[in-house]
This record gives sequence, C-alpha cells and structure tokens, in this order.
Amino acid sequence: MVTERLSLSGDLLDSNSLAKVLDLLNHFGIGFQIRKFRVGEYSSEPSLIELFLTAPDLQTMRSALKACEEHGATFNLDEVVLAEADMDGVLPDGFYSTTNFTTHILLDDQWIEVENVEMDCGIRVWKQGETWNAATCAMHSVRKGDRLVVGFSGVRITPLDEEQRDDQEFRFMSNDVSSERPKRRMIAHAAEAIRKAKVEGKKVLFVGGPAIIHSGSAPLLARLVSDGWIDVLFAGNALAAHDIEANMLGTSLGVDLKTGSSGPHGHTHHLRAINKVRRAGSIAEAVKSGLINGGVMYTCVTRGIPFVLCGSIRDDGPLPDVITDNVLAQDTMRKFIGGVGVCLMVATTLHSVAVGNILPASAKTYCVDSDSDTVIKLTDRGTHQAVGLVTDCEFFLNELVANLSV
Amino acid sequence: MVTERLSLSGDLLDSNSLAKVLDLLNHFGIGFQIRKFRVGEYSSEPSLIELFLTAPDLQTMRSALKACEEHGATFNLDEVVLAEADMDGVLPDGFYSTTNFTTHILLDDQWIEVENVEMDCGIRVWKQGETWNAATCAMHSVRKGDRLVVGFSGVRITPLDEEQRDDQEFRFMSNDVSSERPKRRMIAHAAEAIRKAKVEGKKVLFVGGPAIIHSGSAPLLARLVSDGWIDVLFAGNALAAHDIEANMLGTSLGVDLKTGSSGPHGHTHHLRAINKVRRAGSIAEAVKSGLINGGVMYTCVTRGIPFVLCGSIRDDGPLPDVITDNVLAQDTMRKFIGGVGVCLMVATTLHSVAVGNILPASAKTYCVDSDSDTVIKLTDRGTHQAVGLVTDCEFFLNELVANLSV
Amino acid sequence: MVTERLSLSGDLLDSNSLAKVLDLLNHFGIGFQIRKFRVGEYSSEPSLIELFLTAPDLQTMRSALKACEEHGATFNLDEVVLAEADMDGVLPDGFYSTTNFTTHILLDDQWIEVENVEMDCGIRVWKQGETWNAATCAMHSVRKGDRLVVGFSGVRITPLDEEQRDDQEFRFMSNDVSSERPKRRMIAHAAEAIRKAKVEGKKVLFVGGPAIIHSGSAPLLARLVSDGWIDVLFAGNALAAHDIEANMLGTSLGVDLKTGSSGPHGHTHHLRAINKVRRAGSIAEAVKSGLINGGVMYTCVTRGIPFVLCGSIRDDGPLPDVITDNVLAQDTMRKFIGGVGVCLMVATTLHSVAVGNILPASAKTYCVDSDSDTVIKLTDRGTHQAVGLVTDCEFFLNELVANLSV
Amino acid sequence: MVTERLSLSGDLLDSNSLAKVLDLLNHFGIGFQIRKFRVGEYSSEPSLIELFLTAPDLQTMRSALKACEEHGATFNLDEVVLAEADMDGVLPDGFYSTTNFTTHILLDDQWIEVENVEMDCGIRVWKQGETWNAATCAMHSVRKGDRLVVGFSGVRITPLDEEQRDDQEFRFMSNDVSSERPKRRMIAHAAEAIRKAKVEGKKVLFVGGPAIIHSGSAPLLARLVSDGWIDVLFAGNALAAHDIEANMLGTSLGVDLKTGSSGPHGHTHHLRAINKVRRAGSIAEAVKSGLINGGVMYTCVTRGIPFVLCGSIRDDGPLPDVITDNVLAQDTMRKFIGGVGVCLMVATTLHSVAVGNILPASAKTYCVDSDSDTVIKLTDRGTHQAVGLVTDCEFFLNELVANLSV
Repeated sequence: MVTERLSLSGDLLDSNSLAKVLDLLNHFGIGFQIRKFRVGEYSSEPSLIELFLTAPDLQTMRSALKACEEHGATFNLDEVVLAEADMDGVLPDGFYSTTNFTTHILLDDQWIEVENVEMDCGIRVWKQGETWNAATCAMHSVRKGDRLVVGFSGVRITPLDEEQRDDQEFRFMSNDVSSERPKRRMIAHAAEAIRKAKVEGKKVLFVGGPAIIHSGSAPLLARLVSDGWIDVLFAGNALAAHDIEANMLGTSLGVDLKTGSSGPHGHTHHLRAINKVRRAGSIAEAVKSGLINGGVMYTCVTRGIPFVLCGSIRDDGPLPDVITDNVLAQDTMRKFIGGVGVCLMVATTLHSVAVGNILPASAKTYCVDSDSDTVIKLTDRGTHQAVGLVTDCEFFLNELVANLSV
Repeated sequence: MVTERLSLSGDLLDSNSLAKVLDLLNHFGIGFQIRKFRVGEYSSEPSLIELFLTAPDLQTMRSALKACEEHGATFNLDEVVLAEADMDGVLPDGFYSTTNFTTHILLDDQWIEVENVEMDCGIRVWKQGETWNAATCAMHSVRKGDRLVVGFSGVRITPLDEEQRDDQEFRFMSNDVSSERPKRRMIAHAAEAIRKAKVEGKKVLFVGGPAIIHSGSAPLLARLVSDGWIDVLFAGNALAAHDIEANMLGTSLGVDLKTGSSGPHGHTHHLRAINKVRRAGSIAEAVKSGLINGGVMYTCVTRGIPFVLCGSIRDDGPLPDVITDNVLAQDTMRKFIGGVGVCLMVATTLHSVAVGNILPASAKTYCVDSDSDTVIKLTDRGTHQAVGLVTDCEFFLNELVANLSV
Repeated sequence: MVTERLSLSGDLLDSNSLAKVLDLLNHFGIGFQIRKFRVGEYSSEPSLIELFLTAPDLQTMRSALKACEEHGATFNLDEVVLAEADMDGVLPDGFYSTTNFTTHILLDDQWIEVENVEMDCGIRVWKQGETWNAATCAMHSVRKGDRLVVGFSGVRITPLDEEQRDDQEFRFMSNDVSSERPKRRMIAHAAEAIRKAKVEGKKVLFVGGPAIIHSGSAPLLARLVSDGWIDVLFAGNALAAHDIEANMLGTSLGVDLKTGSSGPHGHTHHLRAINKVRRAGSIAEAVKSGLINGGVMYTCVTRGIPFVLCGSIRDDGPLPDVITDNVLAQDTMRKFIGGVGVCLMVATTLHSVAVGNILPASAKTYCVDSDSDTVIKLTDRGTHQAVGLVTDCEFFLNELVANLSV
Repeated sequence: MVTERLSLSGDLLDSNSLAKVLDLLNHFGIGFQIRKFRVGEYSSEPSLIELFLTAPDLQTMRSALKACEEHGATFNLDEVVLAEADMDGVLPDGFYSTTNFTTHILLDDQWIEVENVEMDCGIRVWKQGETWNAATCAMHSVRKGDRLVVGFSGVRITPLDEEQRDDQEFRFMSNDVSSERPKRRMIAHAAEAIRKAKVEGKKVLFVGGPAIIHSGSAPLLARLVSDGWIDVLFAGNALAAHDIEANMLGTSLGVDLKTGSSGPHGHTHHLRAINKVRRAGSIAEAVKSGLINGGVMYTCVTRGIPFVLCGSIRDDGPLPDVITDNVLAQDTMRKFIGGVGVCLMVATTLHSVAVGNILPASAKTYCVDSDSDTVIKLTDRGTHQAVGLVTDCEFFLNELVANLSV
C-alpha cells in the first residue's frame, strides 16, 4: 500500500475539475480521503482541496498522479537527498529521523522500502548491483562513508490506520495526562484563565480535598480566598474539619504541621475541633465567637465567600454546616454553578467527579491531583474539558498564588 | 452558534450540485466541514457527501437549509417529542439524557436553548405566556405532569471545539488506559492475536520483568514457553536471577513463594543463586549439570527458545548470560525483532520502552502493568500501537494460559 | 561503637546473677537492652535473659564480657572463617553477603572495620605488612586467590538506630503494601479466614466499588453471594446501578461487557436502568416483576442477603434503595457490624475508609485495590488491621471463588 | 484478657524485689513483658522497671496487683470520670475518644466492656438495674443528659497483638510513605542535612531522572550545582540528552518548554542534539566549542563538578560520555561514593535503586518521586534509610533552592 498527498486549487467547483480528478482516482482504484476543503468565499479567491491517497502499489499511484496532473492537481515527487557520513557513529547534519511506521524512499525514480523499521534511526542507502537498498541505521552503527537520507524529501510513511496518517502525527508525549510535563507553564495558564474570568464577570469555583490541609497548604488557599480570586468553595467535612483542627490545635489529622510528626492523642484532635463547632452551632458562629481565628473557613466567613460542604459516609461528626443529604447537597451546589467560568478541582476524586457531573463543558476546568488516575477517572465520566495537572496540591497552590500576586 | 448536518447524494459531481450547494452555504456565511465523501465507483452508484454546518444563528441556518433543499440536499428538522411524567422522581420512558454541551431543542418551529446544561439529566419544557422554556432536570427533581423530551429528534448540541462534534462523541470511559475495563475480554483478544500470529508464521516476543517471579507467576510463563507460544524472551538479570533463585531456594528476593514471608538471610539468596550460575559458566551449563531443574529459564533452555538478557546498572552479579554493554544488548535484541507479529510486555517499564524503541508499529503490542503510568510512558515515547492492560501480571498470565490451553 | 549479644540462663533471680551482671555492665559503661526475658514458671525450669550490648570500643566489650562470664553469662566470640576464591568473578561457596550497615570482622583477635560498606557483596580480606584489611568486594571483582569471609561467624554489624539491630532485620521486601507479592497465596489466606469465620458463626461483610462491574466481575461476586459466603453487602449507588445496567442492557457505564467498546448512546444506559428501578419502587420490586433477572443485586434479593447502599454526592438518580443521608447511612451500616469476623473491601476507597471507621480492629480485614495508595490511606486513617492486596478486583474475585469452590 | 501497667523502682536488684514480683506474677498466671529497664548507674540512683501485664480476667489481675504492691510495685487503678452531655449531638468537653480496640472501663470497682467498639466515638455509660453498661456513641447520637467518659483515667484497651499495645500507638498517618504530608517541612529538613554535610566536609550526591528536564526544572538543578551544593551527579543518557536538547532547541523530548506543546518534527530533536555532541566528541568539548551554553550539564562542566552518566538499554545515541557497560558504570559510581553524607534521588526509579545498592546506610538519603511505589521499591530493595517524599520534582527542587538560598 502506498500513500501520497495531492492538492487541487483554483476554480474547482465551477470548472468541475474536482469531479474529474475524483473520477480518475476511482478509475485507477485509488482510495482517497479529503483532508482540507476550503471553498473561496469570493470569486477571486481560489478553492483548495487536499486529498490523501492510498494506492495498491507505486506504479498505479504514479500513473494516477500523472493523469490527475492534467486537471491541475499538484503533488510532490521529489527524490530523497543523500549525504555521506563523515565520521563513525555520527549521522550527517539534517539527517532524516525515522518513525516506527512502514517507510519508503523515492530514489532513481523508484520507491524503495526501508528495512527493519524502527524509530529514532537514520536511513542508510546502498546499491547492490543495480538495486538500491535502504535500511534503518542506529546512530552508533553509522560508519564513515555510509550514505544516509537527509531532509524530508522523498520519504513516505504508510499509515497504520485511519488515525495515524503522517509524520506530523508521529510524536512523543502525546498523552494528555502525565506527570512529565512543564507544569509551571500550565499553572500560569490557569492563572490567566482566572484573571480572564474575573474580567468577564464570571465566577471562579474552587473544589478541594483535605490533602490541602494535611500538606500544610491551607494558608495558600486562604490567601486565594482573601485576595478575591475564589467566588465559591465546594468541599467536604474533612477539608473544613482539618482546617479548623489546624487553626485550633496546630495539627491535621493529628500530624503537627510544624514538625510533621504525630503527637500523643493526635487522633482525637479533629473530633475535639468538630465538637467545639457543633457546640457553637455553625462555623460562622464559631468564627464570630473567636473560637476560630484563621485558616480557609475563617477567611471564607470573614470575606463573605459562600461555601457548600457536602457530606460523605466517611465523615466524623460532622460539622454542623455539612449537608448530610446527598440529593440536597447536589441541588445546593447546582445553585452556585451558574456563571462559573473557571473551576479548580484540587486533590479530591469524589468531589471532582461530583462537580464535573453538574458542570457545563464550557466551564474551564483544571483538575490537580498527585495521581494521574484521578484525571483519567474524571474524563472517563464525561468531563472531557478537564485539563489534568498531575502534581502536588502544595506546588499548584504555591505557584498559583505567585502567578496571581504579580 | 448553531450546528446542523446536511446530506447530499446522487450524481453530485457531474450535475455540479455540490458546487452549487457549497456556493449557497458560502453565500449565507455558513461554515462547513466534510464528514463523509463517498464517490460512486460505477455510474450506477450514487455519490454521498455529508456536511457538518455551523451557522451564526438559527434563522440563518434555516434559510440556508431551505435554499440547499432545491439542489437535492437533505436534512432533518423534526421537532422534539415531549412526554408527560407519570410519577414524581421518574423520567418518562425513552427520555433524552443530556450531555454537558450547549443544547438547543426545536419546538413550535423555534430553537430553544436548554438552561443549566449538565450531563445525565432530562430536559424539562414549559411555557411561560407564549414562550417555550427548557432546562435540564435531574431525575429526582421530576414531578408528575412535567413535560420532558423523549427520543433524539429535534435536539442539537453545539460543539465545544473541533474534536467534539456530536452526541455520538459524548461518552464515558473514553480513555485508552484505565484499570476499570473488562480485562478478561482484552486478554482473550491478546490470545487470539497470538494464535493468529502463529498461524501466519510470525513470532511472539515476550518481554518480562521480575515481578513475574515475585508474584509467583513463573510457572505460568514457563507453561507458555513450554507449550510453544513464545518464540523469544527478552528480560533483564533480575527476572532470570529470581527465577533461578526460586528454583534453587524456593524464594524470590528472599520471600518464600509458598508462605509469602521473608526468612532469615533471605536477602542473600539471589546472590547465592547467581554465584552458582557464574561458577557453572552459563545458564545452559547450569541446566545441563542439573543445578537448575525447573522454571522459566530452564524451560527456555530445554525447549531451545532463545533469550536475550540485557544488563542494567542495578544488577547484582550479574548472571554470565547477561549482556552488560547496552549498545551490544540493543543490537542483539534487534537481531530477533524481524518477523515479530505479537509482542507481550509484562511488568517492566525499562524493557518495555527499550523494546518499543526498536519495534515496528506493525507488531501488535500488549503492555501489561499494574500501574497505568507505565502504559502512558510507553505511548509517550512513540509506541502508539501498544494496547495497555492495567492489571496484575499474575492475572494476565493466568488468563492467557487458560485462553491458550483450550 | 561495638555491639554484642549476651545470654544468661539458670536460676537468675534467686541467685541474683542478673543483678550482678547488670552491675558489671554498668561498671564498664556498656549500654544494654533486654531482648528476651523468660522466667521459669516452675522452679525446675530455668530463666533465660538475652541482652543486646553496646560498648564504646572492642577492648571494653571484651573486658566486660570476660567479667560477666564468671556469673554464667555466655556469648560468642568466634573469629571469621576465610576461604580462597578458586576462580575469577565467583565468590567461594557459603560466602558472607554484606548489608549496607557498618560492619566489623573478628580476625586474629582483632576487630577490623570493613571498608566501602555496600549491600550484596562479599568481604575480601588481605594483609598489609602486619595489618589485616577488609573491604566489600562485588562478585564480578573477585579474583582467583582472593581470601573472602564465609559463614556468619565473627561478623558484627552496627545498628544504624534503635530499630535496625541485627542481621536478621536487614531484609528486602519489608513493606506491607506492594504489588510485588505472591498474591495467590494471600488470597488463599483470605479464603481460609472466610471459612473459619463461617465455622465460628461469624459474619462475612463485603464492601465493593463499581470497578467490580466495569471489569466484568459481577458474576464472580454474584457467585460468592449465591454460594453463601457473603452475609452482608455494603456498596454505593454505582455498584448497584451498573450491575443492573449490565443485567438490563449488557453494558457498564456504557461499555459493552462482551466487546469492551463503548456503543452509541451508551452514556445514557445507567440512567435508563436507574429510572426503571425508580419506577418499580425498589430493587426488590424490580426483581419481583422480572425487570432484573441476574447479577449481584438480583442474587442478594433472591438469596435474602441484606445490603446497605450508601449515597454519595456523585450519584446519578439515585436508585430508590440508596440511603441519601450520610448520617442515617452510617447508622444503618452500624446495625450490621456486630458479629462480623471477616471484612472484604474491594475496589473502593470511599467505602473502605467509611467501613474501616466503624469496624472493630478484631475483624479480619482485607483491602483489595489496584492502587497501593488506597491501602496506605486506609491504614493512615486507623484501620491498622487491614491486610492490603494491591491487585485487580477481577483477579482477586476469580481466585477467591476458585479457593472457596474446592 | 485484661492488661495493666506496673512499675517497680528502687534498689530492685540488690533487694531482690524484682525476683519476688516476677515470682508472684507467675504464681497468679499473669503474662508480662518488660517495657523499660533502667538500672541506676550509681548506687544513689534507683532502678526502674515497667512491666506490661496480661491477665486472664479482672479478678486475677486485681489480686495479683495487690500482692505485688507489698513489694513496692505501683500501678494505677483510678476509675473513669463521667460527665453529662449538656446538649444533643455534642460530646462533653474533654471527652474520651475511642480507638477500634477492645476497651474496658473501671467503674464502681468493676471493669465493664465497652460494646460496639469503633474509633472516633465517645463512651456512653448507663445503669440497667444494678448493672453498669458502656457502649461507643457517635457524636451525632449524643443526647442531652447522657453520661459519657471524659479524660483517660480508668480506660484500658486490649492489645490486638504484640505490636499494638496501648493508646499511644493508635494513631493516624502512621505510614512512612504518603503524598498527604507537609512536604515543605521535609524539604527544609533535607536542606538542613545538606548544609550540615557541607560543614562536616561530606559530599552531596545528586541522582536524577529526565523528568527534571521535561518538567522544566533544569534551571533549578543547574542553580544547585552552580551554588556549590552538589558535589557529584549521577544520571543516565536521558537527563543529559534532554538537558542539552533544551539548551540547543528549547524542547524536551520535543515538547516546547515555553508553550508546553509538541511541535512538528519535535520527535527528532533529542537525536539531533545527541548527534551534535557525538560529533564534538564529548559534552565538555561541546561546551568548550560553544555548542552548549547553558543547562545542567553545562554548569557541571564549567564548575568542574564530576558526573557519571550510566547507560541503559532504552538509550538513543547515546551521548559519548555515557558509560555503556553496566559493570564498568557501577564501578565508576563506586569511586564517588566514599565520603557521601547526603544523597538526593530525584525522579528516577532505575538510578535510585542502583545507587541505593552501593550506598552505605549511613548516608542520609532522600528519595523524591511523584509515585509512592518508587519509594516502596527502593526500601524493599534494602535502602531502608531512605526518606520518601511523594511529590513533584519541580516542587522539590524549587523549595530546596529557596531553602538553600537564604
């Protein structure tokens, strides 16, 4: 199977040249897919069509191309350019670097298949009697005097399937979700999206999990709230309870946030904090009475930022503000979704998926988690618009604050 | 922005009806993309073209569609069908289930935008004065007597971007790599691919890591080798050393494979096994002398299955068969790549990526690992053909043996 | 710092020999920890005390040991045994294999420090003038004629800290949670625990997540229920909804369980299934009416096995049986906890932690997840008794059924 | 089974009171373990022994304790303190918070077992006729007027096994490896360790993987080298190649580090960079000739910091400085291990385990990876001294630079 690209331009539709070319391709048994189809808006502007052809063999392809040429079709049949290696183990400058797809090169008017296809190699070419041969050649195997392909001319790769069509599409790092990305850059993007949303009068929704508190990042989130970047907070009992525990007792789930170690009876701390707020009646009352004097929830209350705390079956207590009925909790969240332009989902699988479920796809959504599986799960449940950042919540919040504080 | 699908069929090219339709669309300022383009091979067979249209507003779209109709273009402008809820909290049978994309419905000759778009809801429709309204309605919020959309007629969703075009493409579980898949089915596919490769005279390459031995799966791999399903084995020092340790001393990295516990001095076992083989001169010699009498390597030797053991800097010993020079090891693997039809990569990131690097994309490749990141890394390094199975090597091998033993 | 072990036995308390030995150790400035302390129950049975000594230097240690000897204390001061390497690159049989702790050897009545400590090496010994030297020697660096330590006599390693005291405790694979384990063996253990619980009249509680259905393992879980191994099931809306979706429509979250691919409109399937059950009034009513005729929930209903479905904020629908209030859901689960002997937690972080919260530590708990982080989180929240199996739920259930069907 | 703690102090050994107490315990059939054993160094300093007792029942325990009292043994038999709940759903201040272990309370001279043991609850006490009853009580279930235990007096929990002995040891967050930690604090510790090593004249070894470059963190690592904090760098071909690719072409594995997107032909970039260095002969020569003018490797060369690049079978090229023979590579690394006080292992499983293999346990080792499995694998292979930080390399390096720049 051989593939080729063919372009048609000009007054295609009126002159009926498209119809004629397609007829010819049919005649030669050449398959085609339309890649581009641009129809000139004004009569002065020419139309442009690009076709991707698949022929059973080279001979047929060349015959068909020649026939199409008469109707104004253009294509490229430049031959490969060769260069000689000037030292062992080094490819010539500008070397063609292989993919792992079946590859042919055009040389002396013939298409030669490259043997031993393998990515990240050069293509070595040699003559045996009258016949040209070509094979991949790993960099270390190059010997001085070898002839190798340079540039992109005259090289054709054969599609494995519909979706992998040409060299452009052989690339590394194509997965959306990976921890191996320049994340600082992605966080800067999120910051820009937040600024833009605020300018446009849209809301920023923050959805967070308790690891924000455990990792000692509460001051960063409180800063975002305090600086006016967050318009509404969705969380569960745990984020609020540990935030309050940290404020009252200096620990998060019993771990001292200054020393990182678990003290004696630390396991009772979050219960003591929750109990005190239950006695006060609500988080707002506890803030009012001075029981809580810092942290994320304190900042929400004093800044008037609304929060929705949704219950779950693993909750202790829970805090009096937690909505324990799931259906009511969902409906309460729904009331705050209108007008959300950016949604940040940080360190929570449960709440991220729950909010993804009720969010329109038009809301810019960033999902931050140390585990790539959280992002995979979120998009697997339909929140395709989510941009995944596989990273630490502490890092994310730190960078975001830095970006938004400029 | 409004979208619509439009079909043209018949003798499109000769009659120039395509040209006329495209002209009309241009005239109305309607964007279009060609989705299907099938040209009739014989004159008796009609051509078919499907266009995806994007108009600035509904009025324009409808005017354009009407104009195109004269040239044989067909489209669907059926209105939505409504049904009344017959009880609280339950949608009518055949209810339309929403996506999270912007949605319009066609009712009384008008396009109405659905409010509060959210996935997995019904669409509730009501009249306020003379105006129709539509909004998403969660299942639990349905009240007896509500009118809701049923079926797919008259509902249009607006693309978020180029790649997400229509309802077909809103779906769950779209990620290639996830542990939440019916894996038994995928393993059956791999087994079929292996059978097919053998029938076609192609080779099956097995690339494995030491977790195969640690998890107690050596007998399963040995069984595959023994039954003739594997033509060549690529591994490192660890797989071979722990396989031999297990055969000689019953442990893998000191863990007793019968009891699962680490015995005293277990940490010395793999070194003792390696030392004995170094004394024997090679694995084959150790098998010959009776020092090794079972396991994966034993089966390879006695069945004459070639293996390439590639060294790494974390190796102890290493075994005398290990190729310690990486370049030589790569070149040795290359000698066995020709003719490989199926490649199984099991429980090893290092060797999977290394083999992926030298494998043609045409080789059917299955990458099995308990961590989805391994599969992500492999495809991020260009081995796009790899089918990922996020699962236990023990489970994979067990099922594969069962499938191939029938 | 030098360490040594010392044993005392006999009529220690009456003869006051313990008091005398401890006095002596104090006198010499030797630190000690009591490792074993067994007091004879009858006068005929001797007491036994083992002490772990730490001296500032070897000279002091030896003087102290000699003084203690008079009071019946015993210890071991055998020297190292050396053997000559008989070929290059191979250690002598019975070689001592090093740890990464500071190491001394006793040779010619002197303690010599081993240079370049490194795990998995031999100890090479050589004489320079009158002085003995010792250094680690990697296997490949051994040269014929080298003298190396064999056996364990005369080697002392120095504790890094309180918890890592002796050679016994240097070992590989010491983490409780890892995917590199012989899991088949651990599943057999779980099966035994289940059988034992049933014999003792205790209950078996199964806590499961929807991946059981997505992975096609519903028939395995249904089998366990049907065979009487499960006494109560805790789950969420998702497990039940997808189980019923699979029964009604053959898909799980739209993925066809036979082909593994997502069909058109698959994303609506679970909603259609839930809607039908809401119309029926309950799962039991839907079973009664024939709407549901197989699967996990069907089997629970027909076998009379109670189930508790706890709601969460990410639920669609939910099913009418789901308890949407978290506090009520927790209290309902509490009613079934009494008498639970074994708890299996499979493929769910949320429900595992929730159930762990209300489970007594005496209940044998197995936590099965493809992600080691789930098990880490569970024990980090106090369920220390949980045995973690980092594996696929499909594999676990398959093996468990096989073990329990014998 | 009942447990109790008992202390003995004074001139225990001379007066033989220890012997007498142990005899008594034996007589009553009470098991004991010695928890503390401190012998007075001077005659004026009293000895102290703490025993942990296990009796078959409360009656026996109390009889034995009374008998021991005569010999100077002390123990605590205070009863529980009760407080009345003053409002619904709130525990009294100072409430006792339960664990999940079997629990008894001492009330009116009797030990009462607490029913329904469950962590994170209060203990409610009530009288039925003449009998006291006690049961756990979830916070939300408290009713005004309920009597609940406050403080720690009179509560005894029964050990599940040897290792879980008392309330101190029931705690959350006990796993060493978890992403839910205050990592900033741990990074500050690492910075202190580095400063201390430098003061003591010890070396700092950095072991790094290519994700450092992919994530855009090369400038941070270069900064550490440039500021003199790193004495030697161990890495593979990939870190060096992508660092040089980033310097020459602005990409890492083809991903533009400024925009985060993959450009056309990006997949050829690292090969082009490697080829140029091969032509130059070495990294140092390429720096000298101006071919490389920034980045990690440039900084090492210009600052005279030695580096060891160890080959692997997945390498492209490789760079001329890479040691392709594993055994030679290991031996080369060994030459730089002497004097290493701190080892930082960042974003590489292969090199971390390899270096862990040759590192003495006395070297402070920090293993930084976004995946907890890397740290688990490292300690499972014997590098028990490694402190794991489950986080992003970008975050780690950023914080470390900040800490060391003060």
